[in-house]
Amino acid sequence: MVPVLDEAVERISSLPGIGERSALRLALWMLRQPKENIKLLGNAILDLVEQVKYCSECNMISEHDKCPICQDLRRDKSTICVVESIRDVMSIEQTGEYNGVYHLLGGVISPIDGIGPDDLSIPKLVERASDDQVKEVILAISKGMEGETTSYYINKVLSPTGVKVSAIARGVGFGDDLEYTDPMTLGMSIKNRVNFNR
Amino acid sequence: MVPVLDEAVERISSLPGIGERSALRLALWMLRQPKENIKLLGNAILDLVEQVKYCSECNMISEHDKCPICQDLRRDKSTICVVESIRDVMSIEQTGEYNGVYHLLGGVISPIDGIGPDDLSIPKLVERASDDQVKEVILAISKGMEGETTSYYINKVLSPTGVKVSAIARGVGFGDDLEYTDPMTLGMSIKNRVNFNR
Repeated sequence: MVPVLDEAVERISSLPGIGERSALRLALWMLRQPKENIKLLGNAILDLVEQVKYCSECNMISEHDKCPICQDLRRDKSTICVVESIRDVMSIEQTGEYNGVYHLLGGVISPIDGIGPDDLSIPKLVERASDDQVKEVILAISKGMEGETTSYYINKVLSPTGVKVSAIARGVGFGDDLEYTDPMTLGMSIKNRVNFNR
Repeated sequence: MVPVLDEAVERISSLPGIGERSALRLALWMLRQPKENIKLLGNAILDLVEQVKYCSECNMISEHDKCPICQDLRRDKSTICVVESIRDVMSIEQTGEYNGVYHLLGGVISPIDGIGPDDLSIPKLVERASDDQVKEVILAISKGMEGETTSYYINKVLSPTGVKVSAIARGVGFGDDLEYTDPMTLGMSIKNRVNFNR
């Protein structure tokens, strides 16, 4: 009925999980807000897609050629943690336990979806790991068949570089009850048990 | 970590029903889409708040001084349907049963929220209804105490104009079972029964 409203509803409903009714509700809500707030929202979305680049080193999102982590002189460049996505980096950063750098694959090897090693910046990882400075590559890739295949493949292509390849520990979560832990996880946490007094 | 992403997440999470986690998910989803699509979204939001005006006659949203309904020469200007919001207009328009014009209150009288008749463009409604051309005002305002108060008040202030004041019928929904209809609604549909053979 009102073209600018129709256009806004159509665009908002293109977002995942937002149907046409919710989109209309959001658009009408926007009209009831101070105009400045909604302009900030619109501009934030435009800035996001216009200004975000990808780090030439690790593929993390960045506003510059290199991301803040790769640029940070205090980060340990001898250790590269291989993850699938931006969110994985955010999760690991939140722990405060990791001081190395990252390498984002952007996914896992998936023949069904036509995703091969070259689509996942694995050649670039090999190139980075070939630098004498790099001592260890930590695989923090999801379990499951595709993730395992990817880890296996990376381990194989990294072997000529002589770099140490490790994988994050899998086990019973902090504070989780054994009785509610799935057998695969519990089995792994027994197999990979660590010395109590270390 | 990346200021443009943080800004986008903050702005998106200001939307109703969207928390910070969902906002991050939406922002990362946007980064995976073709840039053009997301620019269309951002611009649609900016256009919405920058180009939408309110009809000087009925308060409906519009891109011009008068809304398409008030401008439409085929609409019957002798009948004004009083509703609370834009969505009510959209719902009634969808039925295809109404050919008159509207008057949007923008809410209902609510002393608790400090909303009085003057906040609801009721004086403007009286002015419109005073035009000799106008024969009937249909109240399509929600039930409940505040809605009833508003209807009662409008009926009172319109009486000097001599215009006919009616209210939409309340009753059992089309296709609804009597056993699942609340007693208030069922009672109204008996009290307001209509001649079967008309």
